[in-house]
Parts: sequence; C-alpha cells; structure tokens
Amino acid sequence: MLVPNAMTLDRPTIAADLTLDRCATPCLVLDADRMERNIARLRDRLQRFDVTLRPHLKTAKSVEVARRVMTSPAGPATVSTLKEAAVFAAAGVADIIYAVGIAPDKLPWVLDLQAQGVDLAVVLDTVEQADAVAATSRRAGVRIPAFIEIDCDGHRSGVLPGATDTLVAIGRAIEQGAELRGVLTHAGASYGARGDAALQACADEERRAVVEAAQALRAAGLPCPVVSIGSTPTAHHATDLTGVTEVRAGVFVFFDLVMAGIGVCAVDDIALSVLATVIGFQRDKGWILTDAGWMAMSRDRGTAKQAVDQGYGVVCDLTGRPYPDLIVVEANQEHGVIAVRPGSSGVLPDLAIGDRVRILPNHACSTGAQHPAYHVVRGASPVVEAEWPRFGGW
Amino acid sequence: MLVPNAMTLDRPTIAADLTLDRCATPCLVLDADRMERNIARLRDRLQRFDVTLRPHLKTAKSVEVARRVMTSPAGPATVSTLKEAAVFAAAGVADIIYAVGIAPDKLPWVLDLQAQGVDLAVVLDTVEQADAVAATSRRAGVRIPAFIEIDCDGHRSGVLPGATDTLVAIGRAIEQGAELRGVLTHAGASYGARGDAALQACADEERRAVVEAAQALRAAGLPCPVVSIGSTPTAHHATDLTGVTEVRAGVFVFFDLVMAGIGVCAVDDIALSVLATVIGFQRDKGWILTDAGWMAMSRDRGTAKQAVDQGYGVVCDLTGRPYPDLIVVEANQEHGVIAVRPGSSGVLPDLAIGDRVRILPNHACSTGAQHPAYHVVRGASPVVEAEWPRFGGW
Repeated sequence: MLVPNAMTLDRPTIAADLTLDRCATPCLVLDADRMERNIARLRDRLQRFDVTLRPHLKTAKSVEVARRVMTSPAGPATVSTLKEAAVFAAAGVADIIYAVGIAPDKLPWVLDLQAQGVDLAVVLDTVEQADAVAATSRRAGVRIPAFIEIDCDGHRSGVLPGATDTLVAIGRAIEQGAELRGVLTHAGASYGARGDAALQACADEERRAVVEAAQALRAAGLPCPVVSIGSTPTAHHATDLTGVTEVRAGVFVFFDLVMAGIGVCAVDDIALSVLATVIGFQRDKGWILTDAGWMAMSRDRGTAKQAVDQGYGVVCDLTGRPYPDLIVVEANQEHGVIAVRPGSSGVLPDLAIGDRVRILPNHACSTGAQHPAYHVVRGASPVVEAEWPRFGGW
Repeated sequence: MLVPNAMTLDRPTIAADLTLDRCATPCLVLDADRMERNIARLRDRLQRFDVTLRPHLKTAKSVEVARRVMTSPAGPATVSTLKEAAVFAAAGVADIIYAVGIAPDKLPWVLDLQAQGVDLAVVLDTVEQADAVAATSRRAGVRIPAFIEIDCDGHRSGVLPGATDTLVAIGRAIEQGAELRGVLTHAGASYGARGDAALQACADEERRAVVEAAQALRAAGLPCPVVSIGSTPTAHHATDLTGVTEVRAGVFVFFDLVMAGIGVCAVDDIALSVLATVIGFQRDKGWILTDAGWMAMSRDRGTAKQAVDQGYGVVCDLTGRPYPDLIVVEANQEHGVIAVRPGSSGVLPDLAIGDRVRILPNHACSTGAQHPAYHVVRGASPVVEAEWPRFGGW
C-alpha cells in the first residue's frame, strides 16, 4: 500500500520504513547530502569576504530547510512574501528582509510581525512608497526599517544607477519617520549569462551599482549601514565584495537545470527531483509516459532559451543518476512524456509499467512550489529519512 | 487592514464586508456570473445530443465549484488525481473516472475509495495495466471498472485507432476479473487548432476514433457500455455525437486566454483572474510592476504559440474590463511586469502605487493551481461574496 503524501503542516512525520519505491507519486524528493554540500560550498566561498549570508527562503518555503540553510535559527533571512515572513517568524526567525517592493496596504501586516519581535525590513524604490512607510511608522510609533532597491542591470525594479536625486529624495522621505536601513540589489540578469567571465562581470556590475548608491546616500548625509547584494550566480562568482555587507541567494541550496546550464553547478549537484511512475508507452514514437506532468514539474521551461533545452526535466533512475540524453519532452497536467533528446544518440531505457524514475527540474523554486512536502533521502539510498512540509500561498 | 487569504480547508468563510480593494494580494478572483453563464452554455449545447456531461474537476479542484458544475451532487465527474477523487468522494461525489493511466501501485487507494461507496473507474491502455487491474480485482473480490483509452489524435496516451488486436487483448485482460466499462478519449490536439472548421474536424476525429473502438470491442464479444469523449473545444464544436454516451470537459467552467485564442470563448467569458497591486514603475521602459509574478500567474505561457501572445496575462481594471493591449510582459517569482503589447497602439494607464488590477490567465488549470482559494465576486461588483477553498497535491 502506498503511503499518502502529507497534506497539511500538521503531519511532518513519515512511516518508519518508507522507501522511494513505495511513496505515492508524483512527489518531491530532496537529497539532503547534495543540499548540505551546496550549503557548505557557498558558505566556504563567502568566508573570503567580510559579508553576512542572508539566504532567500523563497526557494525552499520550508522551516526544516530554513534551519539548515540559515547561519543561525534566528536568521538572517530573505523572503518574497509576507506569508513566508509570518511562517518563518513563528519558527523563530527574527531578522528578515521582505525583498519585494512594498505595497502600502501590506504595512499593517508588517507592523503586526514587528510587534511579534521580528526585525522585518521592507524594500521600495519610489518616494510614494517611502512616504507611506514613514507615515505608517509615525502613526505606529515604530521606525519601520526600509531598503532602497537599486536596479543594477535593468532587469526589473529599483532606482537606476546614477539617479542620485531620486535616490536621495527616497532616502530623505524614509527618514521622515521610518529607518533607512540600506540599499539592496539583485543581479537578475545573471540568469541569462553563461560561463565564468560573464558571471563575474554580472557580479562586478551588481557590486558597483549598490556600493555607489550607498556612497551617494552617505554623501547626502543619510545613513546606509547595510549594502545588500544577491543572486546565486553572482554569489558564486564575485571576486571583490568591497563595500558590500551582506549577500542574499536562494536557489544555491538546491540548484537546478537552469543553474547547471549557465555553469554555476553540475547536474550532479541538483538536490531536488520529482519521483514519477511509468504509466504507459507510445513505442512507435519512442515515448514513455509517467504520472509527473506539468502539475508536478511546473510549467517552468527555463532551459528553453539555453544552449541545451532540457524540456520539462532530466530523467534519472531511482538512485538519482541521469539516463543519457533522456528528458521530459512534453507535459500535460498529470502526464509527462519522456523521450530521448531530439538529435541525440541516447537510447530509451527498458522501463516497464510501474517502474519509477526521478526527474531533475528546470527551476527549483517553481517545481518545489507545486508540492506540499519534501521526501528527504541521502545519495543513492532509497530510504526516506523524513518528510518536511512546505507551504505556499500569500 | 487587509484580510489574510485562507490557508487551509478549515477556513472557508470571509469577513462580512470584504471587497476587492481590501483583499490581500495576489489572490484569485472568480466571477460567479461568468462561471454560471459558461456552465449554462455547455449544458444548453449538449441538450441537442443524447449524452451525459461528466465535468472534469481538475480545473477547479474545489468542492464549491464542483457542486455547481456537476449535474447532480453525486456526479458524474472526472478527476486527474486520486487526491481529487478522495476529496470529492468525501463531499458526496459517487460516480468518478480517474482519467490518467493507472499505475498498479495506486490500485489499493482505488479499492479504498470503492469501499467507501464510490463508483471509481480507472483508465488504461496496456495489457500489463489490464492484468494488474484484473488481478487486484480478483484478490479484492471487487470488479474494478476500467476504461480503455484511445489516442484519437496522436497527442499523448491511448491505443492507436485501428490497433484492434491490441484493443481486444486489453479488453479481454480486463474482463479476467475487472469490468470493462468502456472506451475513452481526449482530443488534446484541439488546443492547437483554431476556428470553427478546424475545431469541428477535431470533434469529428475524436468521435470517430472512440466509436470505432467501441464497435471493435463489441464485435469481439466484449461489453462497451460507455463511450466517453471530451475536451472543451470539441464539446463546444461537435455537430454529431452518434454512438457517444458521455462528454467530459473541464476548462469550460472558467475559460481562459488559450481558449479565447482558439475561438472557443470571448475574453469577456473568462471567469478567473488574479488580483494584483501596483508596487512600482520603470517609467522610461513603460513598465508597471505588480505583486503578481509567476507564482500567482503560473509559468504557463500557453498563448505564446497562438496568433496573439498574451504574455503572462491580460490586464483589466478592478471591475474586470480589459485595458486595451495591456498585458503582463514578464514575470519573476513575485514581480509581474505590465506593459503595452509590443507593436500595439495601447497606452499605459495612469496607475499609482497601491492601485489594483485584475489579470486574466493563459490557462485556468495552471493559474488556479497556484492559489489556496477563490474570492467569489459577481460581474463588476467589488463585493467578495464568498471565499471557496481549493486544494492541490496528490
């Protein structure tokens, strides 16, 4: 009899002798050996710099993973939603940046969390937001800490580098009641780079943009104690972090095929996979069908524009070893179509109805988000050591 | 103060006076007027045929929606996971097809649900699966009902049309203990068609494949009481359903931009949207940033290959009226980038920080799956009448 997956946060435990061949599929598998290796690798790398690691918990959305990736049970940490802030605060995390531009409507929830003892900082890039944060701070008698976001590479939000008047105006508006905690940027364009030289250039650009912004604020007589950068590719490629005080990164904890495609990790470093069962064939087309469709893999096709398109994921055996050139070429909601990569010399493995495979995801954040829990294994062992709940929503 | 979204199935109620301008964003909005119109439209259409409507509940994953879309509280219904079967069975649905090829490991759960009084049928397309279902049936002393899947258009799983020897061999294997309930197909290729003539051709092909399979089984002396077809595009375009006994369809209940793109509905029929708040701008790029990124919209880019690429969704005002040519052109996890469609004559609306918009999704199934609940409104009214929980997982 299969063991049903956890449905709620109230059921974190598993059957004592669960193995991957008996888990209900599809389900999410986490190789704790690889995860620990990935965490150690970034920590080791950052030791050469005088910076704090503030991991982004949006990738894992799990208290169990958070406790392993943070440098202390109280943080520091980065989140992408106030729901994450609330869940991690309830688990004892007390130093959090909510790293998405603040909507004024969300400030009462920020105050609630601060009243619970959490040092929760917000991020903004307009005078309007700064005015709202300062006004809320004055009304509440609490100086809400706020970061000014810098757009280091033109990929999303933030004050543009060199827009000093805007930057200083925002800083002054924050200081009318709130606390200007510092500047923050995210080198999102690094996800589209490839190779050490290109990624190092992204890291240089990221550092320069935010350090210059900090200098401009200080030159205007404003405080700027924290200078925060972060992305997994740049965290692994920066050679100079002068002026930077902290590094945020998220996906490094699990890695994924997109990160392997840009050269930040090897496929063997990817700690997350989706366990699937073979449910059919179209032999004349060279297809194997499984029960892991896009609902289990997510619709993320992040490798589609990379040099090697991995479809909806790379197919591995039950021990986590990839079959040569075997990918999920197509997906419906609850059907995955496995085939040899077009144009490759791979051969279809001899799998039967009921056999199981593990599929490495394009993007750990999006695939993880489709699942209620992690089934934790170590290396090639089929033993499920633990089931760690994860959460979603807002 | 914002009203937090439902986190669990235990919290289906809402504040008495909740309106869309006060819901915590991002969240999922369901226009019940449009939903009821969509349900009535398909029911009216199918009245000309002698068929049963067996709605696919994978789109909504909600007991409240299921009760409105089914023709009776007990069903019939279609599901894509056994978790759906279990949740809907607990809510009183007693006639269910689990329409994804059965993995033998899942049969104990099927038996559990049958022991609870649910007429739960499985689907298969190999002799191996048929043998497993028959053997399990014999051991349990229960004839598990099984459908043979037919691959009417080469898009996924199923026995190929004309493969009569295989079809009959599967039918005979089922009858060694289980119950051959019928044949079933899904015209998935219709999602890639466009316009009435092409969709009608898909419907003809779907009907012919499954009716011929039923005739072949009966000619071999096997039973085939149920002949089941289904997809939203073909259900809305079939002109002849002779020999068909039931129609399955899912996305018709909400519709989405993919369905509008192939001509099955109008944009004004789409009942689902994501409520988002403006959190920033990049004015020189013509961008408005919101808090609805791909986590809220899903990574589904189903319109990317259609004549009109809708990005990550079409942007509407708070009443649900689309802004001309305004779409979500890019998305990060919790950031959506709104801009005028490239090459169009649309203009960026004059929105301020904190303003709200509603975004119509590419694909109702995938966007819905990102959310824990529906906020139910009617037409242009901002009043949230109810909050209906939805579930995910397996």
